[in-house]
Amino acid sequence: MPVQFDLHALLQMEGRKRATLINKVAGYKTANLIGTRSAGGVDNLAIFNSVVHIGANPPFLGFILRPTSVERHTYENLKETGVYTINMVTEGIHREAHRTSGKFPEEVSEFEACGLQPWYLEGFAAPFVADSPVKLGLSFVEAHTLACNGTRLVVGQIEHLVLPEDALAPDGDIDLEALGAVAIGGLDTYYRGVKLGRYGYFRPGESLREIP
Amino acid sequence: MPVQFDLHALLQMEGRKRATLINKVAGYKTANLIGTRSAGGVDNLAIFNSVVHIGANPPFLGFILRPTSVERHTYENLKETGVYTINMVTEGIHREAHRTSGKFPEEVSEFEACGLQPWYLEGFAAPFVADSPVKLGLSFVEAHTLACNGTRLVVGQIEHLVLPEDALAPDGDIDLEALGAVAIGGLDTYYRGVKLGRYGYFRPGESLREIP
Repeated sequence: MPVQFDLHALLQMEGRKRATLINKVAGYKTANLIGTRSAGGVDNLAIFNSVVHIGANPPFLGFILRPTSVERHTYENLKETGVYTINMVTEGIHREAHRTSGKFPEEVSEFEACGLQPWYLEGFAAPFVADSPVKLGLSFVEAHTLACNGTRLVVGQIEHLVLPEDALAPDGDIDLEALGAVAIGGLDTYYRGVKLGRYGYFRPGESLREIP
Repeated sequence: MPVQFDLHALLQMEGRKRATLINKVAGYKTANLIGTRSAGGVDNLAIFNSVVHIGANPPFLGFILRPTSVERHTYENLKETGVYTINMVTEGIHREAHRTSGKFPEEVSEFEACGLQPWYLEGFAAPFVADSPVKLGLSFVEAHTLACNGTRLVVGQIEHLVLPEDALAPDGDIDLEALGAVAIGGLDTYYRGVKLGRYGYFRPGESLREIP
């Protein structure tokens, strides 16, 4: 039987229950570690489930920053240095990745505290995650603060992309399942993926074409 | 061996290859069908891989709209009526959901053209997807247009939430795997999820606590 909640019922719900529910209603989300460095030289790393595609030419990605203290470190750092990294979370590092959601003192690097190794690209002032198979280095482009609750959309341009050569197909496809990528449910549950199918661009009147 | 692309190399890449690659680098994405109705009364349905959490109290979700004609129908309709729906894509309807990415004439309903049944809530002027287990009805709150490429972030408030009673745990958790939810790789590949673990909020100094 379906159960139905209207806005009033959602607002009446106990706070943690509502937060868990609303974070999960949209389904599986992206799982990425965002790396920054403070003006004082401390590396920062935090998990995000909100990276979105903004454009391919030029290559832009966005992510959502909640107005919390953990995420504020990321924003202050990327505004100061102008750069940040986005690193794919895999099955092999998902427990370490989850640990970065804790609240660490500003002078502590989450890399060390959570058991992840940093990796650096010469001339790029933000740390990558060594064990992450897909590493992106971005430069800050623009940010928009929402009137409704102070949440921010941050947009950056991809300046560097590092990935395993054998993970990249000639047509640009990446085999996420082979890389061990994970998806997040809400803020706390991690999943690996099992491919159902890849499909061609659909033209009305034709049948759906599966790409092997 | 890792392969490395800088911005210049990405800009030199053949266009379709770059689009496929950049759409996949962030990993698994949300899969949702967004339903709207035009001022003329035609139902519209389109698949999106960019729904993000904006807030739980009050409950806000966002999504990214590219400046393309398919997605413009969604935006024009939701601005006209003030409402839209977000519906979970599952394994059972993922092929029909993918078909909605095709370009249909304005007077055609993607529900009928793609083999999906609409479901209506009295007094709510946007169609839901009957076979989607999690259905959200939203009212438009605000939109932000990016300076970099005209892409929009659209934010709405959840006015209605419909889901199977047995899918909702007492603590607000939703079992995405049991619902058959899917994730998308880029624009063309669909995956089901296999749960690796659910973890408690991490406190530095403690060990990671798994929630059964």
